[in-house]
Amino acid sequence: MKVCRRETFNSAHRLFREDWSDKKNLEVFGKCSHPNFHGHNYALEVWVDGEIDPETGFVIDLKILKHIILDHVIERFDHRNLNLDCPEFKGINPTTENIARVIWNILRENLDSKFGIEVQLSETEKNKVLYNGN
Amino acid sequence: MKVCRRETFNSAHRLFREDWSDKKNLEVFGKCSHPNFHGHNYALEVWVDGEIDPETGFVIDLKILKHIILDHVIERFDHRNLNLDCPEFKGINPTTENIARVIWNILRENLDSKFGIEVQLSETEKNKVLYNGN
Amino acid sequence: MKVCRRETFNSAHRLFREDWSDKKNLEVFGKCSHPNFHGHNYALEVWVDGEIDPETGFVIDLKILKHIILDHVIERFDHRNLNLDCPEFKGINPTTENIARVIWNILRENLDSKFGIEVQLSETEKNKVLYNGN
Amino acid sequence: MKVCRRETFNSAHRLFREDWSDKKNLEVFGKCSHPNFHGHNYALEVWVDGEIDPETGFVIDLKILKHIILDHVIERFDHRNLNLDCPEFKGINPTTENIARVIWNILRENLDSKFGIEVQLSETEKNKVLYNGN
Amino acid sequence: MKVCRRETFNSAHRLFREDWSDKKNLEVFGKCSHPNFHGHNYALEVWVDGEIDPETGFVIDLKILKHIILDHVIERFDHRNLNLDCPEFKGINPTTENIARVIWNILRENLDSKFGIEVQLSETEKNKVLYNGN
Amino acid sequence: MKVCRRETFNSAHRLFREDWSDKKNLEVFGKCSHPNFHGHNYALEVWVDGEIDPETGFVIDLKILKHIILDHVIERFDHRNLNLDCPEFKGINPTTENIARVIWNILRENLDSKFGIEVQLSETEKNKVLYNGN
Repeated sequence: MKVCRRETFNSAHRLFREDWSDKKNLEVFGKCSHPNFHGHNYALEVWVDGEIDPETGFVIDLKILKHIILDHVIERFDHRNLNLDCPEFKGINPTTENIARVIWNILRENLDSKFGIEVQLSETEKNKVLYNGN
Repeated sequence: MKVCRRETFNSAHRLFREDWSDKKNLEVFGKCSHPNFHGHNYALEVWVDGEIDPETGFVIDLKILKHIILDHVIERFDHRNLNLDCPEFKGINPTTENIARVIWNILRENLDSKFGIEVQLSETEKNKVLYNGN
Repeated sequence: MKVCRRETFNSAHRLFREDWSDKKNLEVFGKCSHPNFHGHNYALEVWVDGEIDPETGFVIDLKILKHIILDHVIERFDHRNLNLDCPEFKGINPTTENIARVIWNILRENLDSKFGIEVQLSETEKNKVLYNGN
Repeated sequence: MKVCRRETFNSAHRLFREDWSDKKNLEVFGKCSHPNFHGHNYALEVWVDGEIDPETGFVIDLKILKHIILDHVIERFDHRNLNLDCPEFKGINPTTENIARVIWNILRENLDSKFGIEVQLSETEKNKVLYNGN
Repeated sequence: MKVCRRETFNSAHRLFREDWSDKKNLEVFGKCSHPNFHGHNYALEVWVDGEIDPETGFVIDLKILKHIILDHVIERFDHRNLNLDCPEFKGINPTTENIARVIWNILRENLDSKFGIEVQLSETEKNKVLYNGN
Repeated sequence: MKVCRRETFNSAHRLFREDWSDKKNLEVFGKCSHPNFHGHNYALEVWVDGEIDPETGFVIDLKILKHIILDHVIERFDHRNLNLDCPEFKGINPTTENIARVIWNILRENLDSKFGIEVQLSETEKNKVLYNGN
């Protein structure tokens, strides 16, 4: 049984490697490398996999999962510049893949190890990723 | 190959254990335990896993799947109070997890055993569950 | 210029007139009159019509509008039974039309009279209403 | 890590076997077999499974995936009649299952074999399929 | 007070004038003029404007509105070819604008004249029209 | 008759007045004033009001409207920082209201004066504005 909580955050970012020239960044990352950043409404789905607790009927209380997501993910990234404000992306290009992996790692540290975790992250209506830790 | 049919139903419920005090119900289930019930537009996705029939090109005729869902799930739960009207939840707290499991069991009895079944049930825009019988 | 804030609430209700027989209630309101209630995820859009404040660039600060909606509408109706718990519907059948009118009146009392107000309320994916006070 | 690109196309089709009588086609496929065709807005999600490239932070550059989908799928099927215009469906009933399998095969030929591929195809808001090549 | 009912239908069509050459049809209507048709999932919102009936709390019973739409619109156009199967489009190019006008006229004949009517019709996720009879 | 075309763009911005202290900006604009910007997926609906051309059946060819929007709006603002990259917002706080007004003015210059124009702009799933030039 898997349960899912959805939250959103709004961040600025650019795709960019410091060790590449501006020309190469533009060739590879296109308009996503524009120097003054752009931004997205990220939609995050956190799926937690576990057994139903026979006492409550919950896999995990979604109120608790919500607060873990708000305190450890949304609080850090919402209304922030992922490149400039967030040490989690020091030396890491904030592609949707890398953001999902960072979020998965944060959640892994904050959720009981008995739970499996999957993170689905949408960057736009057309682009999204899914990461389960493997 | 998996195919999916989506249907919706609108029900009242409350989260509540009869063997707990009102105080404990409120502590654990919060506003979901309010005594006079609240309700949801449940969105149900039934995924059926099987081989494509080479004659029709269908895994299962979705018109048939639709009628199985309408007759055995929607007819029972739509515009009903899950706690009071539905014997399926006698002694079972109608969390989204438990509703999904009850629906999965109903569908399992009404679909050929050659098919795998997954049930995704959304309670709100932010909360949903996925159950495959394991 | 109109601005809009969207919020949701989850309530139980039934369509029912005390002065009608059960038979007549069932004839007119169908399954919506079932005695033990059903429920919905109501989606509320509040549109506020006004001039852009040249100082802030806002018609109204949507953080303020959000808190007015949360404090005066969501707090009253979310996870409640509209028929039993909410004095606003004493003697008023909680159709989507009447719920929208009650909400419009609440907002009218809590928003500066310089603003026009429109309320769009969705009961299901297929049914919604729009009310502007006229 | 899986990444997804969503595109849409609008096609006419009918469900129909030439070796069946009109009567049998109508019995099995119902209104989907009407002789003058009907049509759909198909929504296609292409999921690609692979490792994150440590240099770019991408599993696959979604701009590249987008162009593969546009050139090899959308260009062939968009604003076309699947039964009459598309040799891919010669002798194949264009059910959603079969369309998804045809698309999966096209993508398999055009994507590096190191990637896993899943195709989700929605025919309507209520009907969709998922195919991963098995 | 306005109330809205949403229904969908799936049709084939092409944009085409018989009195124009194929070349001119292609110049003006592009891929929408392809000879073997394409199709869409049309989403129809019917808005009805009127007073709340103090007895029922309804502007119009949406069950009744639903059946008027199903019987007079969906029944005629769903799983049909608008150009070939529907006499309503004899000599009328089935653009979204013209389909909306045809539907508005059908509803006008079938709804009490005390009601105002607006028809919103979506052809794709990106294109839609709104018609109120003027 | 109104017709609508929907397009999206992804931009960074901050709410901020240069003539205010950082403290006052933070008091009024909250986290929207964070110095390193955040961003959004803006969803733009352009509604054009006019007569149906009896020759084509179009109010305006939506392919033409699409290209006007892409060339004059999306090209300028997509993957850009509204505060730093876009002279249109020199001295203008990029609230959703002001962005909608800027877009309306751009479209007004690029569309025949016989057409009425309305711009609906969504900043998030919960916040949007509508502007018709008055």
